[in-house]
Amino acid sequence: MAKTPTVLILNGPNLNLLGEREPAIYGRAKLADIEKSCRKRAKELGLAADFKQSNHEGELVDWIQAARLSHAAIVINPAAYTHTSVALLDALTAAGLPVIEVHLSNIHRRDRFRHHSYVSLAATGVICGLGAQGYLLALDAVATLLKTQEEA
Amino acid sequence: MAKTPTVLILNGPNLNLLGEREPAIYGRAKLADIEKSCRKRAKELGLAADFKQSNHEGELVDWIQAARLSHAAIVINPAAYTHTSVALLDALTAAGLPVIEVHLSNIHRRDRFRHHSYVSLAATGVICGLGAQGYLLALDAVATLLKTQEEA
Amino acid sequence: MAKTPTVLILNGPNLNLLGEREPAIYGRAKLADIEKSCRKRAKELGLAADFKQSNHEGELVDWIQAARLSHAAIVINPAAYTHTSVALLDALTAAGLPVIEVHLSNIHRRDRFRHHSYVSLAATGVICGLGAQGYLLALDAVATLLKTQEEA
Amino acid sequence: MAKTPTVLILNGPNLNLLGEREPAIYGRAKLADIEKSCRKRAKELGLAADFKQSNHEGELVDWIQAARLSHAAIVINPAAYTHTSVALLDALTAAGLPVIEVHLSNIHRRDRFRHHSYVSLAATGVICGLGAQGYLLALDAVATLLKTQEEA
Amino acid sequence: MAKTPTVLILNGPNLNLLGEREPAIYGRAKLADIEKSCRKRAKELGLAADFKQSNHEGELVDWIQAARLSHAAIVINPAAYTHTSVALLDALTAAGLPVIEVHLSNIHRRDRFRHHSYVSLAATGVICGLGAQGYLLALDAVATLLKTQEEA
Amino acid sequence: MAKTPTVLILNGPNLNLLGEREPAIYGRAKLADIEKSCRKRAKELGLAADFKQSNHEGELVDWIQAARLSHAAIVINPAAYTHTSVALLDALTAAGLPVIEVHLSNIHRRDRFRHHSYVSLAATGVICGLGAQGYLLALDAVATLLKTQEEA
Amino acid sequence: MAKTPTVLILNGPNLNLLGEREPAIYGRAKLADIEKSCRKRAKELGLAADFKQSNHEGELVDWIQAARLSHAAIVINPAAYTHTSVALLDALTAAGLPVIEVHLSNIHRRDRFRHHSYVSLAATGVICGLGAQGYLLALDAVATLLKTQEEA
Amino acid sequence: MAKTPTVLILNGPNLNLLGEREPAIYGRAKLADIEKSCRKRAKELGLAADFKQSNHEGELVDWIQAARLSHAAIVINPAAYTHTSVALLDALTAAGLPVIEVHLSNIHRRDRFRHHSYVSLAATGVICGLGAQGYLLALDAVATLLKTQEEA
Amino acid sequence: MAKTPTVLILNGPNLNLLGEREPAIYGRAKLADIEKSCRKRAKELGLAADFKQSNHEGELVDWIQAARLSHAAIVINPAAYTHTSVALLDALTAAGLPVIEVHLSNIHRRDRFRHHSYVSLAATGVICGLGAQGYLLALDAVATLLKTQEEA
Amino acid sequence: MAKTPTVLILNGPNLNLLGEREPAIYGRAKLADIEKSCRKRAKELGLAADFKQSNHEGELVDWIQAARLSHAAIVINPAAYTHTSVALLDALTAAGLPVIEVHLSNIHRRDRFRHHSYVSLAATGVICGLGAQGYLLALDAVATLLKTQEEA
Amino acid sequence: MAKTPTVLILNGPNLNLLGEREPAIYGRAKLADIEKSCRKRAKELGLAADFKQSNHEGELVDWIQAARLSHAAIVINPAAYTHTSVALLDALTAAGLPVIEVHLSNIHRRDRFRHHSYVSLAATGVICGLGAQGYLLALDAVATLLKTQEEA
Amino acid sequence: MAKTPTVLILNGPNLNLLGEREPAIYGRAKLADIEKSCRKRAKELGLAADFKQSNHEGELVDWIQAARLSHAAIVINPAAYTHTSVALLDALTAAGLPVIEVHLSNIHRRDRFRHHSYVSLAATGVICGLGAQGYLLALDAVATLLKTQEEA
Repeated sequence: MAKTPTVLILNGPNLNLLGEREPAIYGRAKLADIEKSCRKRAKELGLAADFKQSNHEGELVDWIQAARLSHAAIVINPAAYTHTSVALLDALTAAGLPVIEVHLSNIHRRDRFRHHSYVSLAATGVICGLGAQGYLLALDAVATLLKTQEEA
Repeated sequence: MAKTPTVLILNGPNLNLLGEREPAIYGRAKLADIEKSCRKRAKELGLAADFKQSNHEGELVDWIQAARLSHAAIVINPAAYTHTSVALLDALTAAGLPVIEVHLSNIHRRDRFRHHSYVSLAATGVICGLGAQGYLLALDAVATLLKTQEEA
Repeated sequence: MAKTPTVLILNGPNLNLLGEREPAIYGRAKLADIEKSCRKRAKELGLAADFKQSNHEGELVDWIQAARLSHAAIVINPAAYTHTSVALLDALTAAGLPVIEVHLSNIHRRDRFRHHSYVSLAATGVICGLGAQGYLLALDAVATLLKTQEEA
Repeated sequence: MAKTPTVLILNGPNLNLLGEREPAIYGRAKLADIEKSCRKRAKELGLAADFKQSNHEGELVDWIQAARLSHAAIVINPAAYTHTSVALLDALTAAGLPVIEVHLSNIHRRDRFRHHSYVSLAATGVICGLGAQGYLLALDAVATLLKTQEEA
Repeated sequence: MAKTPTVLILNGPNLNLLGEREPAIYGRAKLADIEKSCRKRAKELGLAADFKQSNHEGELVDWIQAARLSHAAIVINPAAYTHTSVALLDALTAAGLPVIEVHLSNIHRRDRFRHHSYVSLAATGVICGLGAQGYLLALDAVATLLKTQEEA
Repeated sequence: MAKTPTVLILNGPNLNLLGEREPAIYGRAKLADIEKSCRKRAKELGLAADFKQSNHEGELVDWIQAARLSHAAIVINPAAYTHTSVALLDALTAAGLPVIEVHLSNIHRRDRFRHHSYVSLAATGVICGLGAQGYLLALDAVATLLKTQEEA
Repeated sequence: MAKTPTVLILNGPNLNLLGEREPAIYGRAKLADIEKSCRKRAKELGLAADFKQSNHEGELVDWIQAARLSHAAIVINPAAYTHTSVALLDALTAAGLPVIEVHLSNIHRRDRFRHHSYVSLAATGVICGLGAQGYLLALDAVATLLKTQEEA
Repeated sequence: MAKTPTVLILNGPNLNLLGEREPAIYGRAKLADIEKSCRKRAKELGLAADFKQSNHEGELVDWIQAARLSHAAIVINPAAYTHTSVALLDALTAAGLPVIEVHLSNIHRRDRFRHHSYVSLAATGVICGLGAQGYLLALDAVATLLKTQEEA
Repeated sequence: MAKTPTVLILNGPNLNLLGEREPAIYGRAKLADIEKSCRKRAKELGLAADFKQSNHEGELVDWIQAARLSHAAIVINPAAYTHTSVALLDALTAAGLPVIEVHLSNIHRRDRFRHHSYVSLAATGVICGLGAQGYLLALDAVATLLKTQEEA
Repeated sequence: MAKTPTVLILNGPNLNLLGEREPAIYGRAKLADIEKSCRKRAKELGLAADFKQSNHEGELVDWIQAARLSHAAIVINPAAYTHTSVALLDALTAAGLPVIEVHLSNIHRRDRFRHHSYVSLAATGVICGLGAQGYLLALDAVATLLKTQEEA
Repeated sequence: MAKTPTVLILNGPNLNLLGEREPAIYGRAKLADIEKSCRKRAKELGLAADFKQSNHEGELVDWIQAARLSHAAIVINPAAYTHTSVALLDALTAAGLPVIEVHLSNIHRRDRFRHHSYVSLAATGVICGLGAQGYLLALDAVATLLKTQEEA
Repeated sequence: MAKTPTVLILNGPNLNLLGEREPAIYGRAKLADIEKSCRKRAKELGLAADFKQSNHEGELVDWIQAARLSHAAIVINPAAYTHTSVALLDALTAAGLPVIEVHLSNIHRRDRFRHHSYVSLAATGVICGLGAQGYLLALDAVATLLKTQEEA
């Protein structure tokens, strides 16, 4: 792993509207702002960031599958698919990479159906409620996990 | 809003088979028939109708997002996604437009899992069990809602 | 059915307080206003409207039974009895007439115990969340149903 | 108890429609037919029959209360109130008389919400699924119970 | 059906202990007493009684199967198997005979797990809480049902 | 509010039997005794007491509606309707008056279905398990609430 | 019981913050204010008040045990332990004293997990939603209960 | 149906990873291996095999719809969509073809949420736990079903 | 395993009535027909078939235990015991042989209590909804499993 | 009870396989070993041991019934019937003898459906998770219970 | 382990009241009596007994932690904390010692919330319903377990 | 806030055993190691760390209350109390400070009762599954939150 390890940063449905949609819950940062911060932080950590968004469950599954051989870890904010997608769970399990699940809001203080996450069953760690900073903390966590792997 | 307000009329999975699929439940009208009636009624109400169908949850989400700035209201028959799609719910909430949910059949008299609708959590109103006429009543409701908005 | 078909329009408990009770939920129209609009619309549709309200479950049952032979259809806003009255369900089933259930508010966005309706099990169609206009759409639906019956 | 003991035979909501309403479930006998059979059988058993029907939960409660001192037993077909009325349960418990609950149909083979009976919690015995004959068997049971009481 | 129709009267587990076991719940009559009363009442009704008891679920199933061609109806007190035996339910359904389910006690006033009966799903009628008399009423019901069949 | 404020004291089904019905649970005081104590206590507190009982849900709803303009507060022992009446809940919410819910017995130590109260969702406070004294404490609470309102 | 009977008034976790914590729910009175009012009311009723608060479940249990021989009754606001402490329930049951449970807010209008109280299973009576006055009404109830005991 | 009947063999999300993903659960055969075996077996049975895989729920729905007129039967391994897709259920019901549902693993011995299948509600038969052989048995079943149809 | 491996083919309660009982659900083949087909198919596969039926749960358990040392695999249609017998589950687990569970009908489209199978927890594979052919497919599966074992 | 009191030691389904079946859960002792230890311990305690095993629920019920007059106590390891047999519960209740329920494994750490025991509702005491020693402790408990009875 | 192994015998909340509190459920022995019997039995078994009681969950956790290095086994009657304390479960799991859970009463015959035990998830064995003797049997079990360990 | 803001870092029951208890789940770092890393990171962030552990729910509540005026934020790993303590939830809500909840393991992949957290209802954010690093990320999050507050 001499070359820069790349982290796939996946964003689920409706996150392309960030900053415009329910700012009281999701904050005012736009997804492009988060992408920029992520690239910056990744670089500082010696990582590359591959940042994507899709409203299509199947496309997210495709991207996770493709990452199996080319990427070092996955940071995923599955948004609405958190609660309904067994397909994402299976794809992440199959990927066999470290997975950090991120949510902008604290999903445990919202509607009851948002408390359960299929994705958590495949995640190494989960970070929620910390807004855009959650992505950066997830990258920090990935850097530490990869370093530990390398040392092991 | 001097120009004709456009209503996005969305149809979920398998509605393209209308008239052929289980006529005892869904009636004998084809989706093209419903589209024609909708266009006619919309015109009578001073509205334009943008009528679409997709079997893809993600595509429905894409269309709803795109409608945020260009359309005045949404009429949606989410079909099977009614019961399973949090992504549609989030997209509709984000859209911030009046939403009328329509079902051809009375979902409360069918399988238990068809009684619950995620979409209803984002809908202004819900009309079910009235067949193809449900779409026309939804357009009437939209016209009234828009007139009230305008007056407010 | 040469003479004008009459529609029984039934209103359940506390609807006599309309306009005064929780206007944020139920709107500002009074029940008398709704009655007037209903009579007008019925007339336009070639129907007569028999408009009643009661706080007594048994009285509503009595009226539904009486309508079996004299009326052509029932529009009912069962209010609180929606969620608790099997007696109304049985009376409506026994009546054997087209039944349109109406709710002023979208009951699926309110307390959990308001999501379930016994009346829906006997209804042809359900309209909710569209305020006083819901009654008028219900009358439109009745007119169409009766016309279809006649033609069949 | 030298004078003829009287049995209160109570019929709940919509039973006045018997013979007309869903004959596949409830049979073709009218309530007046059942009343006549009951009077005949009561007479044969040395009992008097006080046969009543109401669609009003409160009226049924009133009648049960009134029976406490004047009647010897209660036979009740609570119909829809079977499943929803704690008030009937409390009235029957307070009455302190033998209570036989009767249902024309076998409620355990119908909708799930018809499986539970509040009235059963106050009943000595329950007879269901035997149509109009159920009332006659209930009177037989009452006669036996009263005879046993007398002998005790 | 010129010869005397025979009714199979089946008794489930532990009913052989009747009169000794928990008399407060099940009464003081012994199973032999009930058998004697049943034979007497059957004779009065022009029926023969085939009275059996077993603690073995499989044996009860065997007997029900055997009765399909030779018997006219089944009266069954399934005791504990009421609540746990799908095999009895299936055997009774397959038998295609009138079935009257009898319980000595009112099972709806006992432990929660005694409220549900698989057997009721195959029964024509259910009689509970009337002690040994329940068997006699069941025979009366059988006589009426057979007479109705004959006349039909 | 110069004239004496009147408190509507409502009693639900079967409370007219108080003192006769299950004294182990409800105590030996008759409803007339409670009424007398209430009138006395109300007077001491500078209040008038309007004391009523009905077995009819609809009548209780009527009385609550009528109290909206003429009364200062409501003390209600909804008895059996506590657990089944959404209509009472809606009427009390609509009344917009202080509501104190009273139960003679501690409903949390009785049948499971008596643990839930629809009325509590509209009540300012709830007092249970203190017998007839509960009514007097409720009047004390009303007096304090009205005084606080006045001062505010 | 010639000497002044003492009432143990127990306050559970976080009640020491009263007046500072969520005043919209719990009011602005401080615990010391409530203590003062309680002492005053107790004195008027011929009682002594032993007023305590602890954040420790075990300490509350210790105090209840100690009160068995020295105190005449217990008034308890168990706060958060209401919903989670079987140990408090067992201690109160063992104490064998009259117990009045008090809650400042109406717990039935708050989070679902606050609707259930283990303590209610050991309480004579429950008073909720009446703020600081609830304690005073509880003392009134205690006085009446003790007087009744004495007279019995 | 003189020409060779074609069977649509559909594979849901992540099945393209077969052989690489969790071999302990799904076995070591690759999807291409299964495809080859299916083609071979189909040929032996006088059938043609149309073998497809997609991670997209909507695409699977599209393919099922397209098969309605051109194919003779459907064999489907819906993978993760088994448990979450009402859209697949509706498409299969609408197709009106024989449907055999296949799972490589025994889903009843895995996570609880994998026990329920929406697809089973539209399937003729279900085969699970038999690995790649399950597909071949499904084809055998299809051949038999088609032959029976033909003969009928 | 030089000698012909024998497969125990077990049939649960009421399957001896096959062809007579509810043919709409279970088909018209008799159990003897199925036995004959099984023997034929087994022979073709180089296997012997030991075909048995019992209405007694304990006898089925006895047979499974006896098969542990003498048989190579078990094909079982547990019928009603599918849903209620932990004893069968334990016996099958203890047997340590390949187990194929077969159901004539698709149990997932029938009563809710027929959806759950204890036997599936001990089965290698499950085949349902394919009628008598299900047994033959099960034998095919057994042959493949045994061959794989042998090769391993 | 001058003669040696006899303890019925009953073993449910599949326990005859002990030592062979899942030794990780049930240990390596065979049932014959346990029988020998029980006889030895019983003798030391002045008791006789009547040790039996059956896979048939009905046979276990028969044996319990027979023990009512001839035995002094029952030690029972109901195995799979623990969780499904109301018949055993009723038989044990009817027996009116001291009952000690024994399980080799700690059933609370196994499958969820093994946590509930019908037999516990009739047992004096329950011992689980202590392997074969559990039987010996049960005999010790029986000896103590009988001694206490004698002294009482 | 040349020196005498010490068993920590822990008693949860309210057990210090033993003999005074609800003797019908818990018996008349005092905790000091049980302690004395335990010390005697431990001595006979070559063990030392460290006998403690606390009403404080945290203190029980402290003691379990302290026992990890100094004690050989734990016998615990967690009383009310049985049903509510995950902290005890975690402490016992962390201790890594043999754990025997004891309850004086048969918790499966008491309130529903007393049926579930968190502690059982960490216990080797559970003994309930045998009163004070349960402690002695637990010590016997410990002695056997330690001897087995030693021999292994 | 010119002086260094202090963060209260709280650790719940059994965390003092870290590194010794179930290292497969909780890792090998000791609590002292985590404390040291926290102090270092806090210092780098311009914060002071007040690091504490207790097995006592009440003590944790005391510390949270004390922090209200003296500390700037709370990082809490509530361990077992996560799932059972409403008292902690109330204390944290009352504190009115930013709260970050940390768990070493991913609680969503463990026992079902560990999926629910009362503490999450009062937390700003939640971080789980990232081992000791979770504490450091929580401190980073606190630093960002405080900076945002300051700027606001």
